[in-house]
Amino acid sequence: MGTGQPTVVSIAERAGVSIASVSRVLNGVGARRDTVERVERAASELGYVPNAVARSLKGGRTRQLTFAMPDIGNPVYVAMVRAIQTVTKAAGYRLLLHSTDAVVDDELAVLRSLGDRTSDGLIICPIRITDDHVEALRTAAGPVVVIGSLPDDVPVDSVRADSVAGAELAVRHLHDTGRRRIAFVNGPSDTVPGHNRDRGYRAALADCGLVYDPSLVRHTDFGIESGAEAAEALLDHAPDAVFCANDQLALGAARALHARGLRIPEDVAVAGMDDSMLAQAGWPPLTSVDLGSTERGRRAAELLLERLGIAGASTGNPPPRSTTAPPRLVVRASTGPAATDS
Amino acid sequence: MGTGQPTVVSIAERAGVSIASVSRVLNGVGARRDTVERVERAASELGYVPNAVARSLKGGRTRQLTFAMPDIGNPVYVAMVRAIQTVTKAAGYRLLLHSTDAVVDDELAVLRSLGDRTSDGLIICPIRITDDHVEALRTAAGPVVVIGSLPDDVPVDSVRADSVAGAELAVRHLHDTGRRRIAFVNGPSDTVPGHNRDRGYRAALADCGLVYDPSLVRHTDFGIESGAEAAEALLDHAPDAVFCANDQLALGAARALHARGLRIPEDVAVAGMDDSMLAQAGWPPLTSVDLGSTERGRRAAELLLERLGIAGASTGNPPPRSTTAPPRLVVRASTGPAATDS
Repeated sequence: MGTGQPTVVSIAERAGVSIASVSRVLNGVGARRDTVERVERAASELGYVPNAVARSLKGGRTRQLTFAMPDIGNPVYVAMVRAIQTVTKAAGYRLLLHSTDAVVDDELAVLRSLGDRTSDGLIICPIRITDDHVEALRTAAGPVVVIGSLPDDVPVDSVRADSVAGAELAVRHLHDTGRRRIAFVNGPSDTVPGHNRDRGYRAALADCGLVYDPSLVRHTDFGIESGAEAAEALLDHAPDAVFCANDQLALGAARALHARGLRIPEDVAVAGMDDSMLAQAGWPPLTSVDLGSTERGRRAAELLLERLGIAGASTGNPPPRSTTAPPRLVVRASTGPAATDS
Repeated sequence: MGTGQPTVVSIAERAGVSIASVSRVLNGVGARRDTVERVERAASELGYVPNAVARSLKGGRTRQLTFAMPDIGNPVYVAMVRAIQTVTKAAGYRLLLHSTDAVVDDELAVLRSLGDRTSDGLIICPIRITDDHVEALRTAAGPVVVIGSLPDDVPVDSVRADSVAGAELAVRHLHDTGRRRIAFVNGPSDTVPGHNRDRGYRAALADCGLVYDPSLVRHTDFGIESGAEAAEALLDHAPDAVFCANDQLALGAARALHARGLRIPEDVAVAGMDDSMLAQAGWPPLTSVDLGSTERGRRAAELLLERLGIAGASTGNPPPRSTTAPPRLVVRASTGPAATDS
């Protein structure tokens, strides 16, 4: 044979049954009990490797699940991976990971790869939802759970963060500590996270009776270097606080302040978002808004297992469910008292 | 049929050829030209999903490769993922990731999963090499490249860091800047990285004419919190420098120094290893030893593609190759001049 892998032909010869019988057995379709036994014995004698797809055809399970994240370098997704893996591992599933760099085509390819049957289900975390995403989600060949916001009419389970409320928590806290020129370093405005953080920032300013000042706002990428550059530019506008859309941006902003000889929090307060492991990586430790990354990962994994009929009460095919993880402000030294003017 | 997936039986009926012919075509074994065409047409008309394993049996390719790393939360592995993905993506391969938490059984399971044929090859980065690893590597069902050190008689391609020389670079640099009480926060001593860093630290002390002082050495986990606790304990022994086995440990150590009101580098110098994206996350920016994570990832991916016959000159099955990425010291503010005693 061309490959060492036995085929239905060689297994049929060995088992002394028809090729059709071998095919039926390997496909988990009905066959007589003794036929099943003969085929399975012949298959194992020939060193037939029951591969993931054969298993999925036979038992309907590959025992593998997939998580596709936009950026493996972002600790938010690392926290999600840890939470998802804890749940899936306990259920006896191996977790396959994809880092898509938020490239739409790659996200769509992962969605479509459910048709390959190398994975029983998918958790995906897109930062943009295009029409192609919606279409791929509607036509997915297996169960999918989205971590993120979806149009209501997309028939897929989802777990959401409330980054609007989260951004409001941070800005109100900065206002409560006496800051009045609260700058904002945001991510790309064309992403769901960037858009929602902007909404929360503006809403909180309004609540606090502060005027939105475009010169105090910068949009950039979600990264440390980007945060440093954006904060550097903002310092010309004399902010007394810098609110950043994630912890990497806040670490970069803190570095820019240190480099200018400004004290945190005495001269300028700094707050981040996600309360990732990076929130305590710099100095002073960062006040940050926990958007429930761990909770979202855990919940998404539970929803997927329920959809697969592995865990939870749900049997049959319940309607799509959407849950939202509430935000939580974690106050640390970076938003302590300002220096009292003297 | 029990599943929607067509089988050789339904495809044979549709194509009007024997089941054996369908099996041969789908298995990429010889068949008459027109038979191949009829089978492939029938298969596509029946909506046959050519799954990963069918593709692997037909063309010997799933177009998927796997990278198994010990800790997705460690930026060193993130750098490797980015480098590997750049190479594999250019070759038209999707990269599947596993985070094994350095659990031996999980690493072995990933090695054995090569037999599933859901992936064409594997890059694995174990921090411990057990006899079971060696056995699983010897008997792997597909090509494997190890990022890390291996016994010479294991017939597998490997890409290594020279963390012994890397640790020496850091300690010599600290000595050159006038430090004489150079503390060391290392990772677990029973890991290859921990063992090699310890060797480098001791060798460099000897070269510099400094005595190894156990009270200046701590072994802990490779994490920020661990680094803070270890440095806190070390401060009772009045070090004038803290060399840390990775950047997370160094960030933790820096936090402990800040918390004590000690100045970096004036009172205590801090140096890390890996020169990860975290080296510039804190303040001051960290001097760190680049152990070539990106280079190792890129090289490992190239070796795997060569082993698969996709890239490079190698045809047939060349003997195992091992390459070593040279370390490079990156000097930043955290090891600047000490305060001059007055």
